[in-house]
Amino acid sequence: MSEQLKMFMDEQLPLLHTHFTELFKGKNYPETLNEAMSYSVHAGGKRIRPLLVLAVLHDLKSTSDDAVRVAGAIELIHTYSLIHDDLPCMDDDDFRRGNPTNHVVFGEAAAVLAADALQTLAFEELASLQHTDAATTLAILRAVSIASGPAGMVGGQILDMQGEGKQLTLTELEEIHVHKTGALLACCVESGALLANATDTEMQQLRTFSKNIGLAFQIKDDILDVTASTEQLGKTANKDTASDKSTYPALLGLEGAHAKLADHHKRALDALEQISLGSSLLAQIADYIIDRNA
Amino acid sequence: MSEQLKMFMDEQLPLLHTHFTELFKGKNYPETLNEAMSYSVHAGGKRIRPLLVLAVLHDLKSTSDDAVRVAGAIELIHTYSLIHDDLPCMDDDDFRRGNPTNHVVFGEAAAVLAADALQTLAFEELASLQHTDAATTLAILRAVSIASGPAGMVGGQILDMQGEGKQLTLTELEEIHVHKTGALLACCVESGALLANATDTEMQQLRTFSKNIGLAFQIKDDILDVTASTEQLGKTANKDTASDKSTYPALLGLEGAHAKLADHHKRALDALEQISLGSSLLAQIADYIIDRNA
Repeated sequence: MSEQLKMFMDEQLPLLHTHFTELFKGKNYPETLNEAMSYSVHAGGKRIRPLLVLAVLHDLKSTSDDAVRVAGAIELIHTYSLIHDDLPCMDDDDFRRGNPTNHVVFGEAAAVLAADALQTLAFEELASLQHTDAATTLAILRAVSIASGPAGMVGGQILDMQGEGKQLTLTELEEIHVHKTGALLACCVESGALLANATDTEMQQLRTFSKNIGLAFQIKDDILDVTASTEQLGKTANKDTASDKSTYPALLGLEGAHAKLADHHKRALDALEQISLGSSLLAQIADYIIDRNA
Repeated sequence: MSEQLKMFMDEQLPLLHTHFTELFKGKNYPETLNEAMSYSVHAGGKRIRPLLVLAVLHDLKSTSDDAVRVAGAIELIHTYSLIHDDLPCMDDDDFRRGNPTNHVVFGEAAAVLAADALQTLAFEELASLQHTDAATTLAILRAVSIASGPAGMVGGQILDMQGEGKQLTLTELEEIHVHKTGALLACCVESGALLANATDTEMQQLRTFSKNIGLAFQIKDDILDVTASTEQLGKTANKDTASDKSTYPALLGLEGAHAKLADHHKRALDALEQISLGSSLLAQIADYIIDRNA
């Protein structure tokens, strides 16, 4: 990771985590629900989604006192999706980010509800921005709801589930990931750009950027599942192979997957070049996504 | 049910159902997800929540081309909560409104995701109103998210779950229901009032009205669980007794529960009288809630 990105993360992530702490403090939520929600929100992770929101603002030389709130809201949506993904009736995962999953700690029913409430809270947060005009706020709300709903993330999850045990084509695999992870990553960039009042040209190139890093992110995840250890990942490694899941390495071979990863990386950087952001934080996040080992 | 209310329902509910049909038509949702979402949305039910939204507008002599959309969005939230409520890890119900529950038809994983997507779609719908100013739209979004989230409906669900098998006090029981069902019913009235640009006085009396019909609704539900048949209810009768759940009849006796029901009914009507809505559709809905036998 670049020194600049590391400094940015060291500066911004504590703000995000303070925001999350405040979010669950002094609230009139039932205690168990508050604990279960807070548990998964504080369970860490790479925080790539909120970082994308904040990096866009930085790169477009803009600031917004609502930036952390928007970034946090999208992370709440990501977190709710992980809790449901880990349920016994879904992926049945006992560990996530090195910790016991929500249902292992709080039981299945509480986990279902905590995730539901995190989704609701995300939209409450987005509807409560204090420093953003109402039209922009609604544009962000629409972007986040479309990206995370049946035409986006949740749609991708069901396609992913239906694809298990089947031999998928590359197109089908891409279709899954564009929805399952790509849509929400793209909406982070879009939300940041909306807060920054980006121009149409900036918005267009940023969309190309985010589409490509979304796919790169997933290809890298698939590669790591094959090459990294459970300890490194903080979740069960080789799970894709064990569950006979279609992955980029399975379809293209490890070398082919690496080539595809490099191609999407290049496309993402090219888009940034078009708007003079070739050595921006976003470019460094793209590098980080490709180079990470967990 | 009064003749006027029946006519209103005969006129309005088809509009709601057409809206629901449109909502799932030609959408780029994965087929199974679309079917699972649509299945539960079209599974019927009393539609009391959307009716409340529409009745407020009627009674305040207002109209809004967004009324059905707002009413429908709240019903989507109600529907998602029922799907999760019925899951094996929650109430484990195989029947709802006389039909097999979502997870019985589509499997648990698809049911979890369909409900998640219905929640997201509700907020997408609310963020996409076409005939309402942005400030009012955001006020409705905030009201709905607060009412359905951890301080509202989902909070009530976890309290309800934790109360099972315990001997609750009347205060604890009321606490559960104010959150679990009351909050969303109240937010229907509030959303309708916001669309109708209600005065502060109207808003205040309508809040008293909805708080009381919310509790009346639940007391009546508890009474019906004891007195009605499974066939009448379209769901398993006597389930509360079987699961040793605290209910109004269990705490107050059947007669005491009926007295409490009458008290809340009277308070609701008194609030309407204050704003000259003593013989309004809302008053007739209150009567219907009390008199219904399913």
